[in-house]
Parts: sequence; structure tokens; C-alpha cells
Amino acid sequence: MLPKIINVTVKDVRFPTSTEQHGSDAMHTDPDYSTAYVVLHTDSELKGFGFTFTLGKGTEIVVCAVESLSRLVVGKSLEEIVRDFRGFYRLLTSDSQMRWLGPEKGVIHVATAAVLNAVWDLWARAEGKPLWKLLVDMDPEQLVSCIDFRYITDVLTEKEAVDLLLKAQEGRQQREDQMLSEGYPAYTTSCAWLGYSDQQLQQLCADALRGGWTRFKLKVGADLEDDVRRCRLIRQMIGPNNTLMIDANQKWDVDEAVSWVSRLAEFKPLWIEEPTSPDDILGQALRYRFSETHSQTETITSPFSLKCHNRVMFKQLLQASALQFVQIDSCRLGSVNENLAVMLMAHKFKVPVCPHSGGVGLCELVQHLILFDYICVSASLNNRMCEYVDHLHEHFTSPVVIKDAHYLPPKDPGYSCEMLDSSVQRYQFPDGEVWLQMNK
Amino acid sequence: MLPKIINVTVKDVRFPTSTEQHGSDAMHTDPDYSTAYVVLHTDSELKGFGFTFTLGKGTEIVVCAVESLSRLVVGKSLEEIVRDFRGFYRLLTSDSQMRWLGPEKGVIHVATAAVLNAVWDLWARAEGKPLWKLLVDMDPEQLVSCIDFRYITDVLTEKEAVDLLLKAQEGRQQREDQMLSEGYPAYTTSCAWLGYSDQQLQQLCADALRGGWTRFKLKVGADLEDDVRRCRLIRQMIGPNNTLMIDANQKWDVDEAVSWVSRLAEFKPLWIEEPTSPDDILGQALRYRFSETHSQTETITSPFSLKCHNRVMFKQLLQASALQFVQIDSCRLGSVNENLAVMLMAHKFKVPVCPHSGGVGLCELVQHLILFDYICVSASLNNRMCEYVDHLHEHFTSPVVIKDAHYLPPKDPGYSCEMLDSSVQRYQFPDGEVWLQMNK
Repeated sequence: MLPKIINVTVKDVRFPTSTEQHGSDAMHTDPDYSTAYVVLHTDSELKGFGFTFTLGKGTEIVVCAVESLSRLVVGKSLEEIVRDFRGFYRLLTSDSQMRWLGPEKGVIHVATAAVLNAVWDLWARAEGKPLWKLLVDMDPEQLVSCIDFRYITDVLTEKEAVDLLLKAQEGRQQREDQMLSEGYPAYTTSCAWLGYSDQQLQQLCADALRGGWTRFKLKVGADLEDDVRRCRLIRQMIGPNNTLMIDANQKWDVDEAVSWVSRLAEFKPLWIEEPTSPDDILGQALRYRFSETHSQTETITSPFSLKCHNRVMFKQLLQASALQFVQIDSCRLGSVNENLAVMLMAHKFKVPVCPHSGGVGLCELVQHLILFDYICVSASLNNRMCEYVDHLHEHFTSPVVIKDAHYLPPKDPGYSCEMLDSSVQRYQFPDGEVWLQMNK
Repeated sequence: MLPKIINVTVKDVRFPTSTEQHGSDAMHTDPDYSTAYVVLHTDSELKGFGFTFTLGKGTEIVVCAVESLSRLVVGKSLEEIVRDFRGFYRLLTSDSQMRWLGPEKGVIHVATAAVLNAVWDLWARAEGKPLWKLLVDMDPEQLVSCIDFRYITDVLTEKEAVDLLLKAQEGRQQREDQMLSEGYPAYTTSCAWLGYSDQQLQQLCADALRGGWTRFKLKVGADLEDDVRRCRLIRQMIGPNNTLMIDANQKWDVDEAVSWVSRLAEFKPLWIEEPTSPDDILGQALRYRFSETHSQTETITSPFSLKCHNRVMFKQLLQASALQFVQIDSCRLGSVNENLAVMLMAHKFKVPVCPHSGGVGLCELVQHLILFDYICVSASLNNRMCEYVDHLHEHFTSPVVIKDAHYLPPKDPGYSCEMLDSSVQRYQFPDGEVWLQMNK
């Protein structure tokens, strides 16, 4: 007998990361990594935990949105939800009055992600498995029944999705065993936030190299000469054979991106992340313009998706060949349900999935998805890696485990969303102890 | 001495339109037309009124977002704002922490629209002019200084925008006089909501014909056989020479849209509105697929924009030749500032602007924008008309005036956003008299 959800609580939990410039980039100069943190209370002892990720101010709006969505959730049993998870997804995303506020974008969609993440956490706990294992053990039909195919059937039908999963079944056990022993490859963004000094960058990079890291991402986009200096510095530190990615966090207009990135091409970045507006699919196809202007086209590719807001945007980016890496996000897309759709579309288009992570808790969540992607969908590690940022893991009851720059598969039941009660209390905004002290 | 904003209040005002199926369409079966209604209080007697439009549930989230944005507005003088309106627009849309919640889409963007609409209303009142006249009297440089060109400079630069406005100056006085005497052509959506019976449709259509209406929009998309019957009915009523448009309100997937619309082609709709997801720029280019499948391509065009969320989406739709009519929206886009950008881009691409309207108050607002478009930008009425819906005007202090199916230019100072105090009180949710009685 699966539990019934009898209450939903949501809290505004903020970490004052801006005080030390952690997380700073060209567009987000002073983020306070935060969550709208959701707990599903049931008629049993089980609870479901979930959240979405925000940058501080405005988290109260997401909290308000979760409260509004709660009325669609309270009273539902887990059995009722998972028997028709597609229907439940659509209930949250396509309410006749509420969908005007999106649809499936912005505040209402990240709030939906928070609620659905908690439902998946609850389901995995009820099954006594970590989420990745729950997904790996599901048969293709059931997995696909969780996906809302609305607006993507011109690229991926339900039948095609089942077929893709069936085809990837060979070697699954072997890949699962491999993951359990080796873990999933990661890259680090912790060394090179935009607000860090050169000295800090060098120190962190040296530490990371000693720790076995081989793939590094650098924030760029505020000042071209600074970027040239920092790219040179990090490339000298890591040498020609390690991997460098750069991330402009939506800073540039299209033409500006072309000229700016041309200056940075000599440092051979594997990708340029978010060169321009997250809505600009056609602008993102700007990588084609590089091929007209110079010859380093093979290193100047642009994965574009960090804040891409739903499966319809990913569909088009893939249709337009506008990205070479798909960056799924566990808190911006509509939870596992919508990420499943995107992973399957990426597989169909033969584009590797390299999840966006970091923030607070994003690593904890997205590791489950990328393990599933490797074991059950892509069956490849070629050009694949999951972002890692070394912040704030201490606030979770089941923090990520990194070994030799690899994510080791989580073992605890659930989706690794649960935060320590003490952290929630201390960092709750505006009444937690940490904020009361800062505002003294 | 221009006034200074010292306080912002916002109210959740809902009209129970769902009880009579007004506004019902294939995706929004029971809308309660609503607003998040903003009042800017100043240190003078002047106030600024503004709102955004919603469908009922979830309006409380927009109210919360307006409250969060208020801290960026309180303390600013009108002079300070309009001296650098681009900077003020960007302050609201690009706050380093808040932009994560959009950027420029969903709840946070419609809340921004509500606040900026109130600022424009305040400005027009301070100048003692209706908003359209304030815009018409501004010189091109000042108009363009209100636009944030971020992410659109690959299609429209500031200099190009000024040039477009300068080129359109000839004949401006004549067009203004023409508008004052004749008004701007309108079409009606009031006859054919999806929830109306055939009898109701016929009655309303007969009334509209007698009232001088020649252009009609019909909601479609729920049931194909119903649509065929209703299209036949309305085409018979209005005859071959009047104009028919159909609106699917995002109901279809891409392939479904192609087959469905093919069945309705015989009724010669001028446009098919929102055939699929508002995010699907490439899917919207589906009109090209009609040309492969049958010969009525000239009547099967698809304007796509009703809920298109910002200038970056419009830019791409224009770049991709994915629409033949641009439907601006006074409450979904970032107020006058962003609509100016879209009108200028549409003009550059030679695509007519036909505003989305209806709801509650959208007619009151968007008439100002389309008057400006005709007088100062497009200088043409060819294939141009503004949506009109005959609902809820009685709640405004300066309601629209329609004569012979034309919008007569508003004369009162401001942006026609002000609602009657008595209406705000009665319809406030959940404590207004109307809602208290309904929930008894």
C-alpha cells in the first residue's frame, strides 16, 4: 500500500555565497545559492523531499508558486500518481488557468520541478532504492509512460522512445557494475568563478590537478582582456591535453559572441556555454558563422542549454543542429519526467548529454539522471561528463561522493534531495540564524 | 518637477468569467479573467495604474512577484526613470539574482509588465496626454532610448531603429488626423468562444454583422468535426467577402496541426493562430509544410505570437519567416518598451502587426500601441487590425470606445489602465464581495 500525500510544506532556504564570490559569473555577479525546499508529508512515516535551485532574491515567488501547486498534489496517493505519471505531470503543467503563467517556463516551471522532484524522491524511498536504480530497473514502457510527449511527437513518439530503450538494453548490467566500481566522469567548475583572483584560480587549479581532475570550466564574458589572461593562465596550468570549457552565462549578443569567442579560440575550449540568450535558438546556431570566419571550427562548438527551459526548446536546438552537447538540468526542466524526454531526444540525434550542475544540491540530483543515461540510454562515455562544484554538500543527508574526479553512484534510497534539518533552520530566509546575524 | 514613487500596492482582482464560458478555448476551458493590479503612489497627487492579465488561479504568484520587484521601484523619481528608461527596464529584467527566475519569461516577466505599464501610465498622466499621443510626440532618439536592444542587435541596432522612425515621419500628422476621425480597424472574437452553443454563435454573429463588423475570429482545436461544423456555420453567416481567422490556442502537436488545418482550409481562414507550443519556432515554420501538401497556401498562413514571451522569440520568428502576422501583447511582453522593439522589428521584416487583445483590459492598453504603430511606424492599414472582445470594459475609468468596428483614439491622459475603485473592491480575490458570495 503506497502512501498518500496529506500535506506539502515549502521553505525559502538561502546560503550567503555572494559574500565570497562563489558562483559569480558575467551575468550573475553576486548569487546567493538558494532553494525552494519542499517536503511531502504522507499518511505513513515516509516523506518525499525535493527542491528547485534559485539565486537568492525572488525565491519567495517560487515558494508562493509551490504553495499554489500544492492543492493539485494534496490528497493524491503515490500509487495514483505513478500509475499515470504522464497525467500527473500534465495536471501540474497544463491546468487550464495556471498554464497562462508559463506554460512550462519561468517561475511556475521551476516550482513544478521542485514538487515533482519530491514526488520522485518519495517514490524511490517507497521502493527502497536510489532514484537512478529505480529508473534502471523500470521497464521501457513504464519509463516512457512518465513522459509528456505533447509538442515533441514530430521528433520523438512514444513508440520510438520505447524502441530506443529496448535497443540499449544490451550490456546494461555490465555498465551498471562499471558505474558501481568506477563512477561517472566529472568536470570541475570550482576553480574559476569570475569573481576569483588570479592567485585564487591558480591555487584552486593546482589543488584540483593534484586531486586528479582533468576537465575544467572557466567563467568568461565580463572583460575580454581579463578573459584572455585567465584562459592563458588556466591553459598553462592544465597543459594541452586536459580539457577546458568556457561559459559566458548569456552575456553576449550574437555578433559580440562571434568576435569575443574568436579571440579565445587559441585556448582551444571544448565548448562555449551559453554565449547568448537562452531563448535564442537561431542565434545559437551562430557556431555555423565561425566556420565562415575562421578555421578552428572543430574546437569552437557551442553547447547551449544551461537555462534552456523545457523539452520544446531542446527539441528545436537538436533539430537545428544548434548544439553539440546537451546540458540537462534537474531543477529547471520538469523533473525526471521532462529530463527523460530530453535524454531520449539527445540520443536520437546522437548528441552527448553533459548535465548542468553545481549551485546547491544540483550535483546531488543530476548524478542520478546521468547514471541512468549511461546505463540505459547512451551506453557511451565518449565526450561525456557531469559538472561538479564543491559547494554546500555538507547540508544534505546523502551528499555526493566523488572519487578520482568521478561521481560514485548514490546508495541511499531516494533522490538525494533531503537537507539536514539543522541547515534548513539555520539558513531559512529571512528568519534563520545566519540571516538574522547578517542583517544585524 | 516630476513625481517620485513612494509606494507600490498590488491587488489580485478576478472576474468569474468561467461561469458563462466567456473566453473558453481548446486549452483554457474555464478562464476567470483576472489582473494583478498595480498602483504607484507618488509624493504628488498623481498616481500610476498598471496591470498584467491572468486567467484566475495563480494570480497570487504574480502579485508576489510584483511585490518582490517593488523594492527596485520605490524611491525612484519619474524623471530618473525616463531619463534612462532602458536602464530602468534592465534593472527590472536583469537583476543578478532575480533573472534566474526568467529571464524575461513567465511569472517574473508578466509581473514586470504590470509594473512598467504603471510607470508608462504615470508618465503619460504627468505629461497630460493619452499614452499613444505621448509616444507619437516623442522624438525618435528618445523613443529608442526606452528599448533594451540586448539579444536583438543582430537584427535591429539602435541606429537602424532611429532610421526606421525617421523614414516614417512623412505623413504622420495626416495619419494622426485620420485616426482621430475614423479610428483603427478592429476584428471581433466575441462571437465564437469554444464553450458557446451554435445558437449562441449564430445570434452573436448576426448581431455583430448588424453592428458593422467584417472580421471574425473563431476558437478551434478541441474536436475536428465540431470545428468543421462551426467554421461552416460562421462562414455561411459572414459570407465569402468577410474575414475569418481561427485560433487553436496551442492545442496541437506539429503533425496534428498540419492535418487538422488541412481539413479547415476550405473555410479560407486568413490565419491560424497558435497552432502549437508558443516556444516552437521551428514547428511554427510548419506553414511551409502546407505548401507541400496542398495548394491553398495563400490562405493557410500562421501568425504565431499570442503568448510569445519576449523580443528574442519574435526576433527568431521573423528571422525564420515563421509568421505572417505579429501579435504583440501589452501584458505578456515587457510593456511599451519591449513592444516598441517588436513593432520596429516587424516593420523591418515587412510583417503587419495585429495585436492580441481581449481578456480584461487588454483592449484598453493595446489600442495605444497600435495607434502609435500606424502613425509612426508602419504607415499602413493593409492586412492590419486590432483584436476586440466585448467584455469587462465597464470596470475601467476610461473604457475603449468602438465605433463602426473601429477603435477611437483614447483622449484621457494615461495608458487607460485605471480600474474603478468599486470594481477592484468587489472583485478582489478572495475577499471581495463577488467571491465571498460565490464561495458561500
